[in-house]
Amino acid sequence: MGGPSRATPHTTSRAAVLDVIRAAGTISRAGLVAATGFTGATISTVVRALIDDGLVRETGRAESTGGKPRVLLQLDHGARYAVGVHLDPMGVTYALTDLTGAVVSRVTRADAGGDDPAAMVARTARQVDALVEGAGVERDRVLGVGLVSATGGARPLPSMRHWAHFPVAEELERACGLPVVPGNDATAAALGEYWSGGVGETSVFAAVYMGTGIGAGILVDGIPYHGASGNAGEIGHVCLDVDGPPCWCGARGCVEALAGPAAVVRAARADAGLARAAELGAAGAGGADGGPTDGPGGGGRAGRSEAAEFAAVVRAARRGEPTARALLERSARYLAAAVRTLANVMDLDLLVLTGPGLAVAGSVYLPAIRSELEGAFFARASHPVEVRLSASAATAPAIGAATMVLQSRLVPLRPRVRLPEDLSESAAPAPR
Amino acid sequence: MGGPSRATPHTTSRAAVLDVIRAAGTISRAGLVAATGFTGATISTVVRALIDDGLVRETGRAESTGGKPRVLLQLDHGARYAVGVHLDPMGVTYALTDLTGAVVSRVTRADAGGDDPAAMVARTARQVDALVEGAGVERDRVLGVGLVSATGGARPLPSMRHWAHFPVAEELERACGLPVVPGNDATAAALGEYWSGGVGETSVFAAVYMGTGIGAGILVDGIPYHGASGNAGEIGHVCLDVDGPPCWCGARGCVEALAGPAAVVRAARADAGLARAAELGAAGAGGADGGPTDGPGGGGRAGRSEAAEFAAVVRAARRGEPTARALLERSARYLAAAVRTLANVMDLDLLVLTGPGLAVAGSVYLPAIRSELEGAFFARASHPVEVRLSASAATAPAIGAATMVLQSRLVPLRPRVRLPEDLSESAAPAPR
Repeated sequence: MGGPSRATPHTTSRAAVLDVIRAAGTISRAGLVAATGFTGATISTVVRALIDDGLVRETGRAESTGGKPRVLLQLDHGARYAVGVHLDPMGVTYALTDLTGAVVSRVTRADAGGDDPAAMVARTARQVDALVEGAGVERDRVLGVGLVSATGGARPLPSMRHWAHFPVAEELERACGLPVVPGNDATAAALGEYWSGGVGETSVFAAVYMGTGIGAGILVDGIPYHGASGNAGEIGHVCLDVDGPPCWCGARGCVEALAGPAAVVRAARADAGLARAAELGAAGAGGADGGPTDGPGGGGRAGRSEAAEFAAVVRAARRGEPTARALLERSARYLAAAVRTLANVMDLDLLVLTGPGLAVAGSVYLPAIRSELEGAFFARASHPVEVRLSASAATAPAIGAATMVLQSRLVPLRPRVRLPEDLSESAAPAPR
Repeated sequence: MGGPSRATPHTTSRAAVLDVIRAAGTISRAGLVAATGFTGATISTVVRALIDDGLVRETGRAESTGGKPRVLLQLDHGARYAVGVHLDPMGVTYALTDLTGAVVSRVTRADAGGDDPAAMVARTARQVDALVEGAGVERDRVLGVGLVSATGGARPLPSMRHWAHFPVAEELERACGLPVVPGNDATAAALGEYWSGGVGETSVFAAVYMGTGIGAGILVDGIPYHGASGNAGEIGHVCLDVDGPPCWCGARGCVEALAGPAAVVRAARADAGLARAAELGAAGAGGADGGPTDGPGGGGRAGRSEAAEFAAVVRAARRGEPTARALLERSARYLAAAVRTLANVMDLDLLVLTGPGLAVAGSVYLPAIRSELEGAFFARASHPVEVRLSASAATAPAIGAATMVLQSRLVPLRPRVRLPEDLSESAAPAPR
């Protein structure tokens, strides 16, 4: 019989119950039955297990609404903690969150992680220890460390090729004595915005992240959309000109090659007056020039990262340099078109602009993106897409990295139901 | 506490079990436990209910593998049926499928559905009756009728504005005496390919559908990805030129405006020699010219639909008309870039080209799309994306429409878990 050997994906009842309790704050067993659709028996069993694990506690009774008062449940905030680490050329941000994703403590080190992986791992492990001890949290309550970057936690910078074979996660795990969950900074940024409660009711939500490159993290009902290989949301390679300049990805006219931070900096450097006014450094080796043989745009050289150079161009525009302003407005037009494509393909209802690039240049990019979406969607009588600047651009990826640990250690999505070959059995004739 | 009031989405255990049995063909209860991760008790309960409903039957025993032989289960193919109707300007296709989505009978009427909604509904109802009776299927075993088109089942052609307020689904329901499930033809095409077993193991699969317009249907693990408002996969409005021609959607440089079938026909008409050679009709009123005031490209006039005119251009190219060939190759370049964007954003692992437009012109579009994806993904060392021409372009949407009925009537996705405001209760101090 036809059809691929796979059933519908689904999560555990434990996951659903824990998530509803987190979202509600306090809720009764009856409330959980109504919210999840599970039977009272299932809810009782799941809640009992969560209480036994110390994750949930009974916290009081709902004011009687006629019937007998109902016992309320809530997460035991301090039952578990997680650390999130965001490796970014602009610096490394650490966040310690409780079971609810609320930030207990955080710190940023203006340090791209250096160029020596072993040293970076040692430094990171020391910082994690300091963060946990400083907050007075019992170490055995820390579930693990989420490690995110533009390269999925593997390297602070895409251009650090010599890191490619260095097992950062494994080494950090050894150094910290804690499980390490690696991830993508754009997806972590989306999770951070979501768990921080900043996005409210939304079904399909994307965080557009502009750091050295451009990416997007996508959540569907709060669950990261990963795609077939964990590379979903690659809007940096949305094509905006079939005859455009070659991109390192092998294609032409990608938004990153046309208008990403590295492209803006490249154009600014090409303008002697602007380069001087913005105090840009000379183009360096490594990933800085974003050419076809290069990794994702920038930051590979010693000295200022591409993101820092981009910030310098933004400052020049703020000071009134017309060429700097024009470069950013052109970049914003292109990014707006790429974002419209993302909104069309994924059918988003909310978009948050984040990452260091958009944190410094949001005043230019936000209006361009809003007007692009309003024009297109109004005419099609489609629903509006809300666009916001992140209120926590600097810390959202680190918070999201911590929530990745909470999700993976407490409420793992049940592995997609697969049908092993050996389960498809050949029938012997039925007894007559 | 932060976080939106919503838990993770999940489907019923009945859905998962039914889908695993469908995919396996035959499987034992032990196999179901292993495949779904549910307990033996849950499986027994669910299977019992499915047998009582007559959907599943015990079919024999697995050859003994040491232990005692296990009873095998399979869907009762003939227990339920569904009808799928695909309204397309090229004609209306009807398919009757059994419980497994296998086609029992199908027919195509070369008839765009006419211009009178009431007459179309009456004609469709008569055809559904004839199909069911002709196949000797008991009517009370037919679950319903899936009705799909470029406008979500509402109208055969986007340009039929006077249909906008005609309740096609409700009227057809009345005329047939069967529930009608309306849907989008691109999503139905993807479901049809999936249930027909043509796509095999795939996690994120898209069917790119080119009819009068361009769209994509996306399945994640076999479940349609709808987005926030059911409009996901709108690749017709992927921007490929920020300074491009205005699109009816309100934006500029959309692939549909640059290179969709209507744009190709428009360009062909502008070339007197080619228009003659391809025997194109003059541009008509209504949706034919795809201008900004118009609905999705084409087909609004009496006489040949835009899709038929596009087919005429394709035939001219086959006969060696260089200008026709050039127009199609240019269109293919643009569509390839849009498809690369779709593959990047959704992280696809399989793509099937379907719909009347790609069925007639696949020999031009397939190589262009393949080379575009190979170039881009190879350089990024990402996984390859397999691209195929549909083997059942003509019937996939109708089959998918029928499977929409099977899905919605037998294994409805449990509504997304929401947390009504009134479930979030205020805590009274816990008794000490």
